[in-house]
This record gives sequence, C-alpha cells and structure tokens, in this order.
Amino acid sequence: MSGQFTTIGGSILAPRGFLAGAVHCDIKRLGTGKGSEKGKKRDLALIVSEIPATVAGMFTTNQICAAPVKVCIDRVKKGLAQALVVNSGNANACTGNQGMNDALEMTRIVAKALHMPPEHVLVGSTGRIGISLPMAHVSRGLLSDLYRLGRDDGSADHVAEAMITSDTRLKQIAVESKLGSKRVRIGGVCKGAGMIQPGMSRTGKRPTARPLHATMLCFLTTDADIELGALQTALQEAVTQSFNRITVDGDMSTNDTVLVLANGLAGNSKLNVQHSTFKVFESALDYVCLELAKMIVRDGEGVSRFVTVRVDGARNFAEADAAARAVANSALVKTSWHGGDPNWGRIIDALGYSSAKVVEEQVDIGYAAPGSERILWSLKGCQPTKASFETLCAAVATKEFDLHIRLNLGKASAVIYAADLTEAYVDFNKGDVSDPAALGG
Amino acid sequence: MSGQFTTIGGSILAPRGFLAGAVHCDIKRLGTGKGSEKGKKRDLALIVSEIPATVAGMFTTNQICAAPVKVCIDRVKKGLAQALVVNSGNANACTGNQGMNDALEMTRIVAKALHMPPEHVLVGSTGRIGISLPMAHVSRGLLSDLYRLGRDDGSADHVAEAMITSDTRLKQIAVESKLGSKRVRIGGVCKGAGMIQPGMSRTGKRPTARPLHATMLCFLTTDADIELGALQTALQEAVTQSFNRITVDGDMSTNDTVLVLANGLAGNSKLNVQHSTFKVFESALDYVCLELAKMIVRDGEGVSRFVTVRVDGARNFAEADAAARAVANSALVKTSWHGGDPNWGRIIDALGYSSAKVVEEQVDIGYAAPGSERILWSLKGCQPTKASFETLCAAVATKEFDLHIRLNLGKASAVIYAADLTEAYVDFNKGDVSDPAALGG
Repeated sequence: MSGQFTTIGGSILAPRGFLAGAVHCDIKRLGTGKGSEKGKKRDLALIVSEIPATVAGMFTTNQICAAPVKVCIDRVKKGLAQALVVNSGNANACTGNQGMNDALEMTRIVAKALHMPPEHVLVGSTGRIGISLPMAHVSRGLLSDLYRLGRDDGSADHVAEAMITSDTRLKQIAVESKLGSKRVRIGGVCKGAGMIQPGMSRTGKRPTARPLHATMLCFLTTDADIELGALQTALQEAVTQSFNRITVDGDMSTNDTVLVLANGLAGNSKLNVQHSTFKVFESALDYVCLELAKMIVRDGEGVSRFVTVRVDGARNFAEADAAARAVANSALVKTSWHGGDPNWGRIIDALGYSSAKVVEEQVDIGYAAPGSERILWSLKGCQPTKASFETLCAAVATKEFDLHIRLNLGKASAVIYAADLTEAYVDFNKGDVSDPAALGG
Repeated sequence: MSGQFTTIGGSILAPRGFLAGAVHCDIKRLGTGKGSEKGKKRDLALIVSEIPATVAGMFTTNQICAAPVKVCIDRVKKGLAQALVVNSGNANACTGNQGMNDALEMTRIVAKALHMPPEHVLVGSTGRIGISLPMAHVSRGLLSDLYRLGRDDGSADHVAEAMITSDTRLKQIAVESKLGSKRVRIGGVCKGAGMIQPGMSRTGKRPTARPLHATMLCFLTTDADIELGALQTALQEAVTQSFNRITVDGDMSTNDTVLVLANGLAGNSKLNVQHSTFKVFESALDYVCLELAKMIVRDGEGVSRFVTVRVDGARNFAEADAAARAVANSALVKTSWHGGDPNWGRIIDALGYSSAKVVEEQVDIGYAAPGSERILWSLKGCQPTKASFETLCAAVATKEFDLHIRLNLGKASAVIYAADLTEAYVDFNKGDVSDPAALGG
C-alpha cells in the first residue's frame, strides 16, 4: 500500500484473463480405510490463463527435490505457460520414476482437456513425502475440476483452500498499480506452515555450497505485459527479499516453489528492466511476496509470536544472514520468545556460535514495535542497559515485535522473519501413529 | 567395560590423592527477595589434588566465551594445576571486566586458603548468562567449603549435585585399568541438559570457520602419571569422539569446558604417546567421556528418546558430520521421534538441505537396536522397503535406538548422539517471567 500501488480484492483472479477452480478428491486420506471426516476440504486446484503467459519460477535448492519441482524447473526455462495444477495431501517427493510419471500425467490430463500443449502446464504438490499419488482420484478430480473454472472470489478462495495443509488460514492478496495509462494487477496465493525455511533459486541449484534453508508454494498471476528476463529478475529479487528470508522451523522443504504467470492482458507498454515503470512493477511484486511470506510465518505451526530479526553492522551480508538465522533458528531463543522472556543471553550465545564474526564487547541488542525506529536497548556493548526486566518483558510480550542486533563491525545488514517455538508445534508434528493418514508432511 | 578396564565406584574421588566438597550458597536465587524453596541444593564445589597435577582442557569454540573459560584457557597452557572451583546458577558469561575479576577472585580465595599459587586453581561456572556473580555469597561459601573436603562417595556426590542446573540426575563414573603392574584410575563428573551441542577445542579457537555447535562441564581426575603432551592428545581425542558428538537442542554454550587433572599418584611408569600402555589409558578415557556424554543426552531437557544417528558412505568426514547434524537437529525429525513416527521423508529432507552431497537414488535409511548390526531398512535406494508401517513404528517406539543412514557415495562415517524434541523441552525453556530467578540459562 505504497503510493505506487493499492491493495485490491480478487487474489489470483484480480488480474485480467485468469480462471481457477478446485475440487476435493481425497488425496490424503485415500486407502486408509478410514472415513474422511474432514473429507470436503478441497485438495486439487487449477489456475488457467486465457492465453499463453510469460512464466518465471524459483525452486527449492534442497538436493532432494520432488518430481513436480523437476518438471517445473525444466518447463519454466522455455518461458511460456498457460496452466498450473496443484494438489495438497501428498508431496510426490521421493517417489522415483512413478512420481515423475504421475507429475507428467497430471499435466497431460489438464493439457488434453484444455487443448494446450502439456509443456504449457505446470504442476505443484505439497504434503507427506514418499507416498505415490493416488492417480485415479487425481484424474477424476481434474476432469471434474475443468468444468468448474470461475473468475469470482469464491474460485480464488477454493484454490487457496486446496493448497493448504497444516495452515489454519487462506493466504492471498492482490494489488493494482498504474503503469503509464494502464492499470496492472498482480495476484498471489500461497501455502506453508511447517518445514519452512526456503532457499530458492531459479534453477533449483544452490548459489553456494552453504545450505539455505518450507514446503511453501506460491502462485502469482499478473496481467502485466513484461519481457521474460525482466519477469525473472523481478521474481528473483522479490523471492530473495521475502520467502527466502523466513523461517518457522529451519527445515527447508523438497517442494518449495514460486511461479508467476504474466499474460500481458493489461495492455501496458511491454516492460523491460530499463523501462521507467519497471520499478513500479517490481515494488508491487516485492510487496505481494513479502506480505504472503509474512502470512506464512504468522500462520506457522503452533506459532504464537512473529519476530523480525534485524542484524546490522556485520562485516558482510553472508555474516549478517548467518547471525540472523542462528538467532532465528535457536531452540532456546525461540522458546524464550514463547515465554515472553527477554533472554539476551541466549541471543548472544547464538550469535557467538554462528559463522558470523562477533566481538562480545561490540554487541547491542534491543527491541522495537514492528517497523518502529524507537528501540528499547537491553544491551549496549554487551553491558545491560538500565531498562528494567519488566520493561523488557513488556517489549517481548506483544504478538509481534522487532529484535534489533547490532554487531558494530561493518555495514552489512540482514533481516529474517521468524517465529517462536511452542508446545503446539511439537504436539502437531509428533503426529499420531495410530492414524497414519493424518500424519504431517 | 572392555577387557582393558573395569567400572568402579567413587567417581572423581576414585583416583588416589583427590579430595572434594560442595556447599549451598544460594548463587541463583540471590537478591530476588524470594525465598529459596529449593534452597538446599549445593551450588559451589571444589576438587583438589594433594599434589600439583598435570592438566589438559578442551573449551567452547563459541566466540562469546565466559570469564571462567578464558581463565582456564590461559592457565591450562602451563600444564599444571591443583584445584578446581565450580559453581552453578550463574554462568559468569557476558559480565565484562567484573566477570573476569570475579572469576580470578574465586581462584584467589581458594589459593589463599589452600596455600597454593592462584595460577594452580581453575574455575568453571554454569547457569544464566549476563548476571554478575554474587561474590559475597561465593566467598562465604568457598571459605566454609574448604573445611569440608572429603574422600568419600558422599563428597563426590556433593560435587555432582553442585554442578547440575536443569539436570535431573547426577552424572558420574570411574574406571580402573592396569598399566604394567599398577592400577590406574580415572574418575569423571559432568553436568548438562540444555544448550547442548558442544564443539570444543584445546584453545577455544575454531579449527575452521564452520560453526560447531551445551553448557556442559566435565571434570576428570586420574592418578595416572602421564606426560603433558600425551594427556592433551588423549583428552582431545576423547572429547572429539564424545562431547563434541552430542546434541540436545543444537545450541552451543558460552561455557563448555572439559578439564582433566592427572596427579601421577598411581606410580605407573610415566606414560607418553609411544608408551605401549598409552592405548589402554586412552581407551579408558574414551569410555569415561563417551559414557558421560551419553548421560547428558539421555538427561537432556524434556528428552524422552535417545537416538544414535549413524551416517556412513559420505564422501568425507565433514559431509558425514554435516549430514548427521542436519538430521539430529531438525525440528521435524526430532518431533517425529517424540511421536514414534518412522517418518523417513523428514530425514531425507534434512539430508537434502545439509551441506553434504546427497544423491536421492542412493540413500538407505534403517533402524536397529542400540549397537546392533541387525538393521531394519525402511528405505533402500530411496525406495520404501517391504517393512510394514507397524514394524517401523515398533523400531522407533523404544526409548533408545540407532538410526542408520547410508549415503553410498564414499567411505566416510560420522555418529551423532541425539534426542527428541518434546513439549516438556518447550515448557521448561519458555520459563516463567513472573519468577525471574527461576528462569533457565
């Protein structure tokens, strides 16, 4: 909601020329012999552009990578797609050749019904790893789905519902910006609550040997007319600053995927990176991705607090990032947040074992309301300030706060959007082995 | 309990020429204005050799390192010590110049009372970070303590009690081996339950830029006569294979310390690394350290399961280690262990985001009883085996089991001793801010 764009309704169907729909086809519960008491949750969705669209994607850098991710990495290279099929309840990961065949078959069914080449159909999956998809159900679902595509808010909601697994809320957004005389819209939907610390790249290959760290899936639609290179650049930048900056539990998924389809139906003058209005598009896309990424953390499994960890004064970005992630993923720091304990000892301990250079006497630690510049310092130069324990407790008692860490060794900064660790997270993820089909991903 | 040594009673007082004692001096609760309902737990201990002893140590590689650790790193270099003072309830970490003065003062009080140079007194602390020691209480405690040194099992127990924080059990052991015609004894006591993933080195400096990842403290006594270099070598090897291979919560402490005092009173022919019986001493020390390290994991905060993660077939040790630690520290893997869920999908996911090279089609995952060669494979070449879900559940339903992971890419192996993640861990560590003095470290 900057001056350059406005939040609007409609989610992924806000941009012109997109249709969507979703059905329930019992992907998760299949074959358990148990009834589907939650049976009506949709679990299979389709998003379609009226015309072929320019496409860009970002994919998990986990070396173990699901079949649908492999299919998308391959197809996105060609830069053109028209439809996207997605299921929840089964990740189609570690499913061998059968998994690859199933992912391709999903795209073939859609392609045939919609009269487009299979190469123009992308696919995403999320759910438990290592179980083959119940393809009879999937194909029955897909064929029924094709007759229910709509443009209304309800259809967009159905897609959001079909994507979620342990999420408790639908996650969607849309914005509109003015590029020249034309109104351009971007819509987005995503899912993700556990196995969340994405580290995505364009090719699924790691930029470095360092492990970055959801299944999170995000599908973006836009009616912008934009060159492929510019779309790739904008998406990479947006994902790097949003989904790749979040963590719920530090586990990077096999299935993390972000895709954007740009069908050009806004009729704007075609955007490229030199174009004067490219920055307007970029900032709108950045906003959409960051808002969706934050929704994932806020709705993370068992999460009761949303903490923005801001590290400044590191020697370089890699160290700022390492320091922020060490704090954001420390079990002891996260449990102290849950308890509302302003325990800076655990924070400085995590900084000290991170791969970032840290000099004890230089470290400042403080708290602020989200986005506020008014920082309540608990520690300056590693010396406790006069802030009372009660005042500090009040600063971390709020559902959302910013943690400011200054290393005072250089000029590099990094932000990680993080969450606390609660009994509810443990309870949810320990599962119930007496009901295998209900077990988490 | 190999053929080369026998487990005996007596703990740190089993070796000849050692005395110990401990008192309660209310270090943790001091100044809270609250009563000390648990007031009688000892929190300050002293271990003394009758004569100056050869000393070696291993120390946390956390860049934020407590004052007592700095004092020990410095003094151990000279290779000679006679006494060791340790407190729980306060880590004396991040306490600035005051902290260093306090650590030194503790050694001066002991030295004066025992008529030895302060340089021959070592010091250890564990507890909450960032609060100055209540020195009036400490010195009163120390002076009373000095008159209670004993050689009986009760005195050893008192030391073990004085060291523990969130531990629920005392952790001690002693063994006896025959070197030539002489019986040589090694005793050990340790503490640690949370902030446990030690990565110690001789100098407190990291061997590499990679973060290794408790407060754990371990004090070892022996009456062996041994050259300094040989003692250092034996301790480094023993710690590398034991305390540096454990994780409870993945957090490496600011205070991790292992010290060994060797006073030579067994009268054996002085050991050096070429000595034919050095290996006997080494294997006894290895055993003592590994047993103590495992006690820490088994008594880890909230721990309900002890899992030995064995990775074989990695390209090199660093990768085997990274793979084992990624699995052992994954929140999702640890919660699945808690639930008795044989969820190999989470295991392979963690392998995939580790910095180890992993090829999906090559990975085998299986379970065995502790130490057993009979492995129940759940996955071979990333394909589920015929083992039923119920059979696999039974394999992970036991309180202790081994997880076997074969990457099948090389010949390197690594073992990590790990634990599950439970609601009890979260509940304990979120603390109770209404009772600051009761908050965890």
